Amino acid sequence: MAHAPAPTRPLAVSLGDPAGVGPELLATAWAAREVHGLAPFFAVFGGELIAQASARRGLHVPIRRIDHPSEAAAVFAEALPVLGDADLPYAPGQPDRAGAALALASLEQAAALAVDGDAAALVTGPVAKGRLAEVGFAHPGQTEFVAAACEADPADAVMMLAGPSLRTVPLTVHVALSQVPALITRELIERRGAIVARALSRDFGIAAPRLAVTALNPHGGEGGLFGDEDQRIVAPAVAALQAAGIDAEGPHAADALFAPHNRHTFDAALCMYHDQALIPIKALDFESGVNITLGLKIVRTSPDHGTAFAIAGKAAADPGATIAAIRMAAECAGRREMSRSAAV
Amino acid sequence: MAHAPAPTRPLAVSLGDPAGVGPELLATAWAAREVHGLAPFFAVFGGELIAQASARRGLHVPIRRIDHPSEAAAVFAEALPVLGDADLPYAPGQPDRAGAALALASLEQAAALAVDGDAAALVTGPVAKGRLAEVGFAHPGQTEFVAAACEADPADAVMMLAGPSLRTVPLTVHVALSQVPALITRELIERRGAIVARALSRDFGIAAPRLAVTALNPHGGEGGLFGDEDQRIVAPAVAALQAAGIDAEGPHAADALFAPHNRHTFDAALCMYHDQALIPIKALDFESGVNITLGLKIVRTSPDHGTAFAIAGKAAADPGATIAAIRMAAECAGRREMSRSAAV
Repeated sequence: MAHAPAPTRPLAVSLGDPAGVGPELLATAWAAREVHGLAPFFAVFGGELIAQASARRGLHVPIRRIDHPSEAAAVFAEALPVLGDADLPYAPGQPDRAGAALALASLEQAAALAVDGDAAALVTGPVAKGRLAEVGFAHPGQTEFVAAACEADPADAVMMLAGPSLRTVPLTVHVALSQVPALITRELIERRGAIVARALSRDFGIAAPRLAVTALNPHGGEGGLFGDEDQRIVAPAVAALQAAGIDAEGPHAADALFAPHNRHTFDAALCMYHDQALIPIKALDFESGVNITLGLKIVRTSPDHGTAFAIAGKAAADPGATIAAIRMAAECAGRREMSRSAAV
Repeated sequence: MAHAPAPTRPLAVSLGDPAGVGPELLATAWAAREVHGLAPFFAVFGGELIAQASARRGLHVPIRRIDHPSEAAAVFAEALPVLGDADLPYAPGQPDRAGAALALASLEQAAALAVDGDAAALVTGPVAKGRLAEVGFAHPGQTEFVAAACEADPADAVMMLAGPSLRTVPLTVHVALSQVPALITRELIERRGAIVARALSRDFGIAAPRLAVTALNPHGGEGGLFGDEDQRIVAPAVAALQAAGIDAEGPHAADALFAPHNRHTFDAALCMYHDQALIPIKALDFESGVNITLGLKIVRTSPDHGTAFAIAGKAAADPGATIAAIRMAAECAGRREMSRSAAV
């Protein structure tokens, strides 16, 4: 895997819900910038809020207001750069409408800066989807929002969960389990498989990415004994991916695929539904799991956890996933910059 | 958790498919009996076969033929006791009809000895279900076979996967994913939940067992947004278990439930389907996962892996799960003997 240079532009980080753990983890990540070798980033809005959150966590995080992303790099060594003035008092564990509105404004502004190229990538803090919806957010999740910001077909925005042990892609996400079998089509597997293979190469520097495709049914249905979707849909889709030159294998029984001796046989697993993809990553990589959106013109990552309102402001939230999300965004964005300059 | 005394009777171990890894792992477990403090056990049939398998693995395992389980304890320190004469030449990786017939005969005899009380418990070696079916095995799996041997309703034989990190119970097993939602009923959850709670107490010595019940849908369906089964079926079943005095909680989003900080909040997780229960246990505890049948008059365990024909005879199979299965059978049987004698 090729080493990625740091991107030349800073990363834009959205606040997440100000009553959740987003602000304190953002501050904690900045405080750990040297230990973890983090590339420059800036927060969008909430300077006072982040200052209070960091103080509550026992950290001294100086905040420096900036007007444009281009100012971030010079500031970053000495202070956490914060773009813009919008702000609120810090009230951890007390989500409200004003907080949701600030979270949405921060997300929109950070995404716009990444889309316009002023920021190298977008890192999003954790939000409560229901609360965002109350203030006008019309997307099922941040992944779909980012697709819209990129003016892309939402079908081309692919969620991947990535940790030190594993990378998994859920082909269906927030749907009832009973709806899953009908949603699994050859086209879905082939389209997403191609996007994932390309992203592993373009963003992760894996020259010849290996995809493992899980079976929908236990043991792949054992030759049709319990469910024929794996023979009828998954296997032909894997064959089509192979025919397109992609190193894909499957359908694999999902329980065995994530056992230790199998985890290193693939670079990413394409999974049929939410729990199949998220159970292994959270069991193995909870403290450092990153949600990354593949297939778009911008790189977007997020810590793979929620707002955790219950522990916000209590210095209890682990910053590992936020640090991992910042680092992964920088690595992927750095690789894209490098390949772009190589192409010139 | 109360310490379990060793059972006074030996454990009966069935061979599994002779072409698989069962015979060599049985021999390896005997060779490791002192290191792991294993209680006396005996194999049923296949003495020559086990001797050849152990030699192929580079072990010297003396075999002593016995006519009755009561002879096993005196022999165990010096040799692996093997009951009966039925045998075959060792042909690892070459499954055939004669081997399947021997596996079935061994399983039937070992189960009968446990049911009759001559053996303290039954440990079953890995079999290939399709091959057993060819020689007259009429059960979906060994769990159902053991239920029949105990003359129990198969609905009362509950499969649990147990490892050092986790215990999980799949409420549905070898069925198509599309069939799962219709099979999840309040009655199923309540009946199995009660069996699991009783077994954790009777067999595992956990005085006040805590059950976690997973949600069928991702995030429990988020209030009916994607699937109403968790509100309509799972939640009322959990409430009924609580009303019956069982410490049950749920429905819990299955992905978060198996994260490190949540794994220690419950003694067993009741899961809605195969992959939900088996993905986390195989990801975390593959080398030492045990399949234990709860709710029957005999204790039955098995290593949680298959015949592994591809690596049989190559000294590559890890004996951890077989050793764990033997140890767990002895502990559970010892607890049952202890409580029986206390009740006299």
